Amino acid sequence: MEELRDVAIIGVGMTKFGKSDKSVVELFAEAANQAMEDAGIVGKDVEVLFVGNCFGGFYEGFMNMAPHLAWEIGAKTAPAFRLEGACASATYAFILAWNWVASGMVDIAIAGGTERSMLPGTPYATRTFAMGAEKFESDCGMTFPGVFATCAMLYSKTYDIPLEKLREMMAYVSIKNHKHGALNPKAQFYKKYGELKVEDVINSRMIAYPLTLLDCCPFSDGASAVVLCSADIARRFTDEPIYVLGVGAASGGGLHRQEDYIKPIARVTSARKAFKMAGLSPDDIQYFEGHDCFTIAEIILLEACGFFEWGKAAKATMEGETEIGGKIPTNISGGLIGKGHPVGCTGTAQVYACVEQMLGKAVKGNQVTPPPEIAMTDNLGGDFASLGHIILGRSKRSKYRR
Amino acid sequence: MEELRDVAIIGVGMTKFGKSDKSVVELFAEAANQAMEDAGIVGKDVEVLFVGNCFGGFYEGFMNMAPHLAWEIGAKTAPAFRLEGACASATYAFILAWNWVASGMVDIAIAGGTERSMLPGTPYATRTFAMGAEKFESDCGMTFPGVFATCAMLYSKTYDIPLEKLREMMAYVSIKNHKHGALNPKAQFYKKYGELKVEDVINSRMIAYPLTLLDCCPFSDGASAVVLCSADIARRFTDEPIYVLGVGAASGGGLHRQEDYIKPIARVTSARKAFKMAGLSPDDIQYFEGHDCFTIAEIILLEACGFFEWGKAAKATMEGETEIGGKIPTNISGGLIGKGHPVGCTGTAQVYACVEQMLGKAVKGNQVTPPPEIAMTDNLGGDFASLGHIILGRSKRSKYRR
Repeated sequence: MEELRDVAIIGVGMTKFGKSDKSVVELFAEAANQAMEDAGIVGKDVEVLFVGNCFGGFYEGFMNMAPHLAWEIGAKTAPAFRLEGACASATYAFILAWNWVASGMVDIAIAGGTERSMLPGTPYATRTFAMGAEKFESDCGMTFPGVFATCAMLYSKTYDIPLEKLREMMAYVSIKNHKHGALNPKAQFYKKYGELKVEDVINSRMIAYPLTLLDCCPFSDGASAVVLCSADIARRFTDEPIYVLGVGAASGGGLHRQEDYIKPIARVTSARKAFKMAGLSPDDIQYFEGHDCFTIAEIILLEACGFFEWGKAAKATMEGETEIGGKIPTNISGGLIGKGHPVGCTGTAQVYACVEQMLGKAVKGNQVTPPPEIAMTDNLGGDFASLGHIILGRSKRSKYRR
Repeated sequence: MEELRDVAIIGVGMTKFGKSDKSVVELFAEAANQAMEDAGIVGKDVEVLFVGNCFGGFYEGFMNMAPHLAWEIGAKTAPAFRLEGACASATYAFILAWNWVASGMVDIAIAGGTERSMLPGTPYATRTFAMGAEKFESDCGMTFPGVFATCAMLYSKTYDIPLEKLREMMAYVSIKNHKHGALNPKAQFYKKYGELKVEDVINSRMIAYPLTLLDCCPFSDGASAVVLCSADIARRFTDEPIYVLGVGAASGGGLHRQEDYIKPIARVTSARKAFKMAGLSPDDIQYFEGHDCFTIAEIILLEACGFFEWGKAAKATMEGETEIGGKIPTNISGGLIGKGHPVGCTGTAQVYACVEQMLGKAVKGNQVTPPPEIAMTDNLGGDFASLGHIILGRSKRSKYRR
């Protein structure tokens, strides 16, 4: 891949997450307009759009939304592609946009996502979310709280950690992510749940044993967008471009096809691809946004991406290794748990959070200091089925590559 | 784009179109297995999948299907992307797969599509199809028969062709496409409607004036798939690779944003992009598969792609210019009208038809002779919102390029 061009992020945008009365088009336009303003471009400069969305057809009776998003932001006839990879939709949009810029198809692209997932209320939403899992599983009534509850059980058993002890360890993920979400003005739980205690998490409403309400991310509406351009021209637009160092994607089968879903093969494969492209290892990553749809999910992904040995991330979390000042600050934006999870836009919202950190623009209490030089995202779609990873740097790949 | 690699098609596959009891996964696997067998590869050789699907979530409660398709065909952890661009989904999948191979990300990719659109019956399907249009329009009750009925009205008025005369001209599209569909064993209307007369079309059940049932394509289930690889290695797999000479994609806004939707801006833009990349003009194309969702649609697209002057394609069709032996043989596979239209797989089914023609493998009565050297597809999603074009050649771009 040496022949591919370096690609830079020159602008980012994100709506506030939470309940919204706006349409998916309006939400996307808000995020994309922010990103374009940040980049100093206008709609007609955008040569291609890649947009993640999961439930548009199902919830809103609105399929094929991508071209209408293009027109809404003034990009008009620019090709517009909608990606649907459940919760990984926007990372997939980002990766494909990166490829179009890297390969010289275009100089300027927008990648983003937009979603209204609060529309139908929690019971119906839970059922619909389950459709992002393998069909046999969702048809049998397996929902995502169920999938991750079994992960927690399996984790407890595999690593010989008593379940009650694991629940305590998991609570530290919830406490951390809610704490930082409460500080983030764009988070769904801004100014809420900022000072949780272990007992609060453990004693909150049981959802799928051993996961309680505070172990789960919420349903959310929202959108996010990123402007990508060829690194050659990035400094025309900004003094501080953020460079794409590596991307990875991989597929997992349904749970019934996975040998061990607390060591998800697709996640391990995808993360390794991203590290390989970047020429880096987990030790080089200074900031991390991972797909914490549930507390146990954050623990599993930290291990699968190589930040901790198998079975060690729960303890490390309890010991503060994923907090600011720890080994790998993780989801200091609030993550999915504290910031919200508008399904098809989460991937580029993770990129937004990384860029904010790298430019030193995170709010007080959430900013890692000094601002991280290299950051990474991890985004999961379905039951460990669609994995995507993005590694970003404040300098071009050539500076870091070993 | 001079730095992009040449890309070849080394295998194609397609299910029979029509009503099927198979799942979208089984349908896709059937088509992809055919394509892989045709290419002489197996699942583990596939490095990435791009799959078009429109209604999976809505009709079947099955989102995020792409990774499960990868595992089903043995490609396992290969990244798998689902594209949804309504009826243009599979062309968009093809274009992105082409880009991954052309840019050197991978050597071997599968592009395809899979759809069950007959599931809910005609009235509900009509309503759901309308969700592929711009939301304001579909919410107001505008369905696709309605959109294209207004196109026919507008065409009649703009070019001063009395509506009853235009209905007769449109009937020739129906006669031709049904005739060739009736000869195509994979077509939904195989052995049906092979000898229609103008009166049959005009007098069939009225759907949306002036369009009758035989002016419309059917709802269909089906799948199609194409194996793409770097041209450098194509001859390891086949003696007759088909090369990708050019691709184009462009977006249109809703009908209310279009100046003149019988000259759809997205279609004109996308076709020109494909011609520009290929270094060719409409005169160079010897075979054409265009998105004939309705008879009037075929007339409009022939003009927008540059095969006939504005307002001249209806008459040219009546005079046989789009039949075998005419100026530009069009939809000799049966097209959407005679072959069927499984929404998210139609684009790669058009590629299948072109490849079959170029290799001289079409059935008797449908084969253009000599087999075309250069062929083209035109695929539409939504109300002139998502356009995609693909130009294929029996030799590499360098041979034809002027």
